[in-house]
Amino acid sequence: VACLPMNDVDAAVEEIDHACGQLGALGVQLYTHVNGHPMDEPRFEPVYRRMAELDRMIWVHPSRNSSWADYPTEKRSRYELWWVFGWEYDTALFMGRLVLSGVLERYPTLKILVHHGGSLVPHFSGRVGPGLDQLGARTPADQREDVEHYPLSKRPLDYFRMFYADTAMFGAQHAIRCSLDFFGADHVLFASDSPFDPEQGPGYIRSTIANLEALDLTDEDRRLIYEGNARRLLRL
Amino acid sequence: VACLPMNDVDAAVEEIDHACGQLGALGVQLYTHVNGHPMDEPRFEPVYRRMAELDRMIWVHPSRNSSWADYPTEKRSRYELWWVFGWEYDTALFMGRLVLSGVLERYPTLKILVHHGGSLVPHFSGRVGPGLDQLGARTPADQREDVEHYPLSKRPLDYFRMFYADTAMFGAQHAIRCSLDFFGADHVLFASDSPFDPEQGPGYIRSTIANLEALDLTDEDRRLIYEGNARRLLRL
Repeated sequence: VACLPMNDVDAAVEEIDHACGQLGALGVQLYTHVNGHPMDEPRFEPVYRRMAELDRMIWVHPSRNSSWADYPTEKRSRYELWWVFGWEYDTALFMGRLVLSGVLERYPTLKILVHHGGSLVPHFSGRVGPGLDQLGARTPADQREDVEHYPLSKRPLDYFRMFYADTAMFGAQHAIRCSLDFFGADHVLFASDSPFDPEQGPGYIRSTIANLEALDLTDEDRRLIYEGNARRLLRL
Repeated sequence: VACLPMNDVDAAVEEIDHACGQLGALGVQLYTHVNGHPMDEPRFEPVYRRMAELDRMIWVHPSRNSSWADYPTEKRSRYELWWVFGWEYDTALFMGRLVLSGVLERYPTLKILVHHGGSLVPHFSGRVGPGLDQLGARTPADQREDVEHYPLSKRPLDYFRMFYADTAMFGAQHAIRCSLDFFGADHVLFASDSPFDPEQGPGYIRSTIANLEALDLTDEDRRLIYEGNARRLLRL
């Protein structure tokens, strides 16, 4: 998987062609912002276009740090909450911005894998479902630009389901089940977040496999999650 | 349920005594910040102390608006994501700050009900569990104050389980199940978020009841969620 120089989009597209086209990379990794800028800025469009053309995967990892304050009265995030919850907010914002700016409408075959089971989206499918069906109702008058040129032909919820998610839920079996209920077994890929467990490696691998074995899944769905989805989506 | 003048903590405590002590209020509602300040600032301690002494409930609702920017390069939150995901981040931060500053260690009988099924916490129990067991590992050297006077005698996860959550998940049955798996049926209370559905009232009431009827729960657990927990916790 290739790393891209996203501060220079021309160079990033060149690197996509070099890595995926010549070196055999199976995709690229993006972060949820570039120097603090959201990933739906129009200047990033060539990256999404090229990845869709090449039919290669984008992996997305959150990336705020403690300098992103959680309250307007504070200078920084406290108690490491910037990664505990902030990274999940990052990922949900990434998904929301790509959906509502129309990136997934314009590139419906784009394959984007978001970590940690799809962040807030599965658990809050009611907010992205009936909630966002009412987009505009809470938009202040001076922010109508957000909803005036609405680019979507389907419900917002339908685009959130187009992402792929992993099983890196740190041993929380009920959370993996929740992600599977939302995305379906053909959109969830095995991952463990190793080595970031207290044992620094084997803990999350062991617990994530145990979670999948204990879940009420068909053998076929379990095979898709462990291996089949990766083979299909990465064209292995 | 009483509303408190939280910008003046002495007056807030006075109002608690007046509302809960004399008027018969069953508790108070707080928001996740006061004029942008986090709710674990020491000046708010008398409010938590008095509520614990009176054994009355605190309801907590998120409260950021679009002026809280999601990216350091932007002036405001876009596409209403400030409520779609931001309110859940608000609530999770509220819980994290109260836990990690030791409020629940000092007032272990405090009853706090957080909306929307407990926000990010049930789905990300792996981050507040094994993740926060490693608190300090990602704390930069100049932020050691966050972890040096660690006030907790138990795992952080154990304090997150002390909150009470509701079933206001906007029709997402898998999400209610996820919250129940985390908090247990004795910590989840029925709520519907009415009238904020597309039908402006009956929609979320109907779908939340349908969710609870369809979940694999014992009759006793269902009775607790609908009514029993409220009677016990509110001393009705």
